[in-house]
Amino acid sequence: MSVTNVKAYGAPAADADLKQLNIDRREPTTKDVEIDILYCGVCHSDLHTARNDWGGSMYPAVPGHEIVGRVTRVGSEVSKFKVGDLAAVGCMVDSCGECPSCKQDLEQYCVPGFTGTYNGKDTHLGGHTYGGYSEKVVVDEHFVLKVPENLDLAGTAPLLCAGITTWSPLRHWNVGPGSKVAVVGLGGLGHMAIKLANALGANVTLFSRTPGKTQDALDLGAHEVVISTDAQQMKNVAGKFDVIIDTVPYVHDLNPYVGTLAINGTLVVVGYLGGLEPLLNTVPMILGRKAVAGSVIGGIAETQEMLDFCGKHNITSEIEVIKMQEINEAYERMIKSDVRYRFVIDMASLKA
Amino acid sequence: MSVTNVKAYGAPAADADLKQLNIDRREPTTKDVEIDILYCGVCHSDLHTARNDWGGSMYPAVPGHEIVGRVTRVGSEVSKFKVGDLAAVGCMVDSCGECPSCKQDLEQYCVPGFTGTYNGKDTHLGGHTYGGYSEKVVVDEHFVLKVPENLDLAGTAPLLCAGITTWSPLRHWNVGPGSKVAVVGLGGLGHMAIKLANALGANVTLFSRTPGKTQDALDLGAHEVVISTDAQQMKNVAGKFDVIIDTVPYVHDLNPYVGTLAINGTLVVVGYLGGLEPLLNTVPMILGRKAVAGSVIGGIAETQEMLDFCGKHNITSEIEVIKMQEINEAYERMIKSDVRYRFVIDMASLKA
Ligand SMILES: [Zn+2]
Ligand SMILES: [Zn+2]
Ligand SMILES: [Zn+2]
Ligand SMILES: [Zn+2]
Repeated sequence: MSVTNVKAYGAPAADADLKQLNIDRREPTTKDVEIDILYCGVCHSDLHTARNDWGGSMYPAVPGHEIVGRVTRVGSEVSKFKVGDLAAVGCMVDSCGECPSCKQDLEQYCVPGFTGTYNGKDTHLGGHTYGGYSEKVVVDEHFVLKVPENLDLAGTAPLLCAGITTWSPLRHWNVGPGSKVAVVGLGGLGHMAIKLANALGANVTLFSRTPGKTQDALDLGAHEVVISTDAQQMKNVAGKFDVIIDTVPYVHDLNPYVGTLAINGTLVVVGYLGGLEPLLNTVPMILGRKAVAGSVIGGIAETQEMLDFCGKHNITSEIEVIKMQEINEAYERMIKSDVRYRFVIDMASLKA
Repeated sequence: MSVTNVKAYGAPAADADLKQLNIDRREPTTKDVEIDILYCGVCHSDLHTARNDWGGSMYPAVPGHEIVGRVTRVGSEVSKFKVGDLAAVGCMVDSCGECPSCKQDLEQYCVPGFTGTYNGKDTHLGGHTYGGYSEKVVVDEHFVLKVPENLDLAGTAPLLCAGITTWSPLRHWNVGPGSKVAVVGLGGLGHMAIKLANALGANVTLFSRTPGKTQDALDLGAHEVVISTDAQQMKNVAGKFDVIIDTVPYVHDLNPYVGTLAINGTLVVVGYLGGLEPLLNTVPMILGRKAVAGSVIGGIAETQEMLDFCGKHNITSEIEVIKMQEINEAYERMIKSDVRYRFVIDMASLKA
């Protein structure tokens, strides 16, 4: 099979820094779009995959699933894109297309599993998929999104993961004008949750452990900040929220937040994978018909809806642009939450 | 205030057996209905309240919130009932009527709290409310239900708690033709969940720890029984159920059941109050947009809907009728789950 060899940045092993290397991209098939990558956001999953924190990482690991760029080639049957169009790719590059989830535009819940943009199974070239820390990417047009022309391109990149991860639960649990929404944690996901919930017309509260983030949260669109370590402030919002988006990526006590859910309210965990400790107590759930749920990214149609909504409301992520060569330092800063609120790589630095 | 002194059965203290005693019932106010009690179901809550297992019990404790009988007097403004009508009372006899929950016919989630049929605050006579282990009860007509004439009266009593407790989540989570429902536990609640889900048109599975209940479950309307301790059987139903009604009243591992939920599925805990141990794992919840929720009884309008539905489909509870004087022995048998599936007291035994 004919391929294009391109420059990329990846980890040769779990304990190695990321460095420049070369990877192959397939020639576009009839349904493929080839994209010249302009910006790629940096997600916590990138770091965890590069370092094999979750197990199952394949090497070299080329992360990156917040990709925006311009179309350079299209297959003969591609109808959505033409050369020169802006285009974006998120966390998925393929799915089975035939399971009940795929048939309902819920590719993120594909029963046999979607193909990740990186560390997935590459059915074209063999081996595993490589992500957006590279010059180009070739993707089936079904998994390529259109980018509104008015948006800042670098700030658009994080919408493809941080944006859709918070948009999907806001939409699934029917957030709109009059909804009372709370967001737990103000990072890459949390700051997008605030912006999107606000633009959807909801009243938005940020739960924060410290007062230091209050002004930032209000600037992003929160109407109130509740310090979660202050018992009186927590009591004041008891029974208030229809939906809580919990973006905190480490184990933490959900029970105080469940107490702030309204009757029929749902707390959606999007950040933490693991056992709920301390024990989740069913009493307030039963006595208030409350739910604790989970959600992962969003479907392709829903991702397009989110991008179109962001175009209309001029919403992008708050970012710090870095060079590709600064990625290892950026990872160290991410671990310390030292970023407001997302790093985005200017891919011109890789091509230079 | 003028009162009627009636015979009842109650616990004088947490460590005492139930025995016959006398209690006062108020004269019906303009909005009250006086009911001559014919049958009263025996709920696990009765036992827990009599023995102060949850704390907060007031004595003498006269339990009973699965009440059916005939109207003997009505207040001047009562419009729903006339003397001689069949009538029923469930777990609630009052609520604030003004909070958002009450205004949505969700009295069971009344924000200041509904008034329990027993062990609630009696705002008319002072002290606490007394339940259905008695000759008569006087209740505001809003909290009195109409009973379809075709139903077996004794078997109707458990619908007022066991029935509505399972009906409400089935309806709230939109169970109907084509739904795949599983029920965990085959007791008073579980056997009603099977009957109601079947009549709603769902495909119904019982999860049971042992094969001994299989034939009973099929007879009640289950289409399949899955032995939850059999790994292969559990694997066969992975990702299958839209709704799981978990009626088990003691701590148990929810994670195996979450694994059997379909995408967007919800496991509703109605039986167990406490911390979820072992730890509930968020991974399958996030990767399948699954939820764990709670639910308690149902609203008054919903309870009437359930009774009407049961009338139409001729659904009653499977019961064992006892005399009032056998209640202490019945409690001991309930603790051993030695009842198929609900004790119902024939109140003629108290009046004799
Ligand atoms: Zn991501
Ligand atoms: Zn699929
Ligand atoms: Zn009960
Ligand atoms: Zn109320």
